Amino acid sequence: MNRDACTAFAPASVGNVAVGFDILGFAVDAIGDRVTVTRSREPGVHITGASGVVRDLPKEPNRNTAGRALEALVDLVRPDFGFAVHIEKGIPLGSGLGGSAASAVGAVVAANALLPEALPRLELLLCAMQGEAVASGSRHVDNIAACLFGGLVLTVGIDQPRVKQIPVPVGMCAVIVHPHMSLSTRDARAILKRDVDLSAFVWQTANLAGFISGCYTNDLELIREGLNDVVIEPQRQDLIPGFAAVRRAALAAGALGCSISGAGPTVFAWALREAATAVRAGMVAAFQNCGMDSDHWTVPLPSDGARIVNA
Amino acid sequence: MNRDACTAFAPASVGNVAVGFDILGFAVDAIGDRVTVTRSREPGVHITGASGVVRDLPKEPNRNTAGRALEALVDLVRPDFGFAVHIEKGIPLGSGLGGSAASAVGAVVAANALLPEALPRLELLLCAMQGEAVASGSRHVDNIAACLFGGLVLTVGIDQPRVKQIPVPVGMCAVIVHPHMSLSTRDARAILKRDVDLSAFVWQTANLAGFISGCYTNDLELIREGLNDVVIEPQRQDLIPGFAAVRRAALAAGALGCSISGAGPTVFAWALREAATAVRAGMVAAFQNCGMDSDHWTVPLPSDGARIVNA
Repeated sequence: MNRDACTAFAPASVGNVAVGFDILGFAVDAIGDRVTVTRSREPGVHITGASGVVRDLPKEPNRNTAGRALEALVDLVRPDFGFAVHIEKGIPLGSGLGGSAASAVGAVVAANALLPEALPRLELLLCAMQGEAVASGSRHVDNIAACLFGGLVLTVGIDQPRVKQIPVPVGMCAVIVHPHMSLSTRDARAILKRDVDLSAFVWQTANLAGFISGCYTNDLELIREGLNDVVIEPQRQDLIPGFAAVRRAALAAGALGCSISGAGPTVFAWALREAATAVRAGMVAAFQNCGMDSDHWTVPLPSDGARIVNA
Repeated sequence: MNRDACTAFAPASVGNVAVGFDILGFAVDAIGDRVTVTRSREPGVHITGASGVVRDLPKEPNRNTAGRALEALVDLVRPDFGFAVHIEKGIPLGSGLGGSAASAVGAVVAANALLPEALPRLELLLCAMQGEAVASGSRHVDNIAACLFGGLVLTVGIDQPRVKQIPVPVGMCAVIVHPHMSLSTRDARAILKRDVDLSAFVWQTANLAGFISGCYTNDLELIREGLNDVVIEPQRQDLIPGFAAVRRAALAAGALGCSISGAGPTVFAWALREAATAVRAGMVAAFQNCGMDSDHWTVPLPSDGARIVNA
């Protein structure tokens, strides 16, 4: 209690997870943002600086994902002090790894630890969503929920979201490959058609239901069948040079599935531990064949959500 | 072995289950068709007659759902004898209770018991799908799979379908109310728009994933939230006079959800055992207020699939 400053680590996350556009996400805590929030006498929210892989974040709180999320928290709680915020970015912007979500979540988790009475996580989720909307132009919650709660997370509803953690089969790993290019979430949303063909809708819902069901029952074949996005990926894959080859390489090396992380360009695969190294090597090589270097991480699932690291 | 005749009971089923258009179904074995298949020296398939609630079924095998399903089985197995088929219909046609699926499933289950080597159920599923297509004009499998396997069933894929039985919370009942009118599945499919709005797609997928997840975890609130069809029901509800009032009555009496069974006009609700009587009474009264009498059944879930009843 009466802490003056708190630092939260908020992990990267993979949104959509192939078949859960805007509703599924999983945390990837091999990388993340560290957000330090300090009590200030001056009321309101103040961005004091940014460090790490991104340094030119907007300083105006309402244009900054962490700042906007904290403003939402201030509106809710009306504390008798203000928040000064420093963001150490570990997640590149425009990577499709939930960087804006992580800054928003890190900020509210750190600030929450400074409040006389901590808010429940669902309230933090709603505040962080306000922050995310600054970056993406839409109130989607898949990255926010995964980053905040950890694990593989389903979110149902936007105004009164319900968050459900879904189990992941033992031994499952996520392979994350980030090619050195960036895409704007806003742009990647803008190219999507406003309608889904009815037969693609049926196919996608079957895959989604099969994927969820497979996760609950350790049914790897059903997960393999389910991890196929027939609605969003076909529209976005041309934004990522080499995507088709990367996906082929992942599946050939034994991945259960491979798709775009969020709006891209990062690509993720699910693979059992014993196949993960070969899957990663195949994906990295395929990007290289297209002239693109990449960063990569392999994490066992489920991966933890945001947490206080320094109070 | 060497039986000369066999009778199978094949239950009614509720297709779609609100959020699983063409992919989810559950068996309702309070009613069903009884199909008797007899070996005949004459090769091929012969419809000898129909009794029960429908008596004027087509006699040409390829225009009869049971006959067409058996023809598919004959094509697959090439037995050195033929099949004579009698269908005792318990399920009204055009009711939305999977009547054509039940006749097709009953036929292949009965015939399978006459084969020197029984086929696996997935092969029977594929044969029965051929029969169902005669009636509905589309190869959907939700009723077939529920009728054949029993319980709440998810089917992923059409050409090589995977069937997954999904658990249902203990104490759950289905209330089934069939107003005295009929609808053609073919017509009810024809009115559907060929596209789904992207935001409705996201909403529906969230509801579906929540429903499935709720079933695996006994999360009644998530099931309640999930059992909301925002894509198909709004397009079909006007085909059923009084539907909105029936649904309201069911929810007011404590149902977790209420929607159209298959293509309608039958309406189903899920409710815990203690609420089921009130739910049924509310639904029946609401149809009566619109001048429609109805039949009704209340069944504990899961309900059994097709089975040999007389060998």
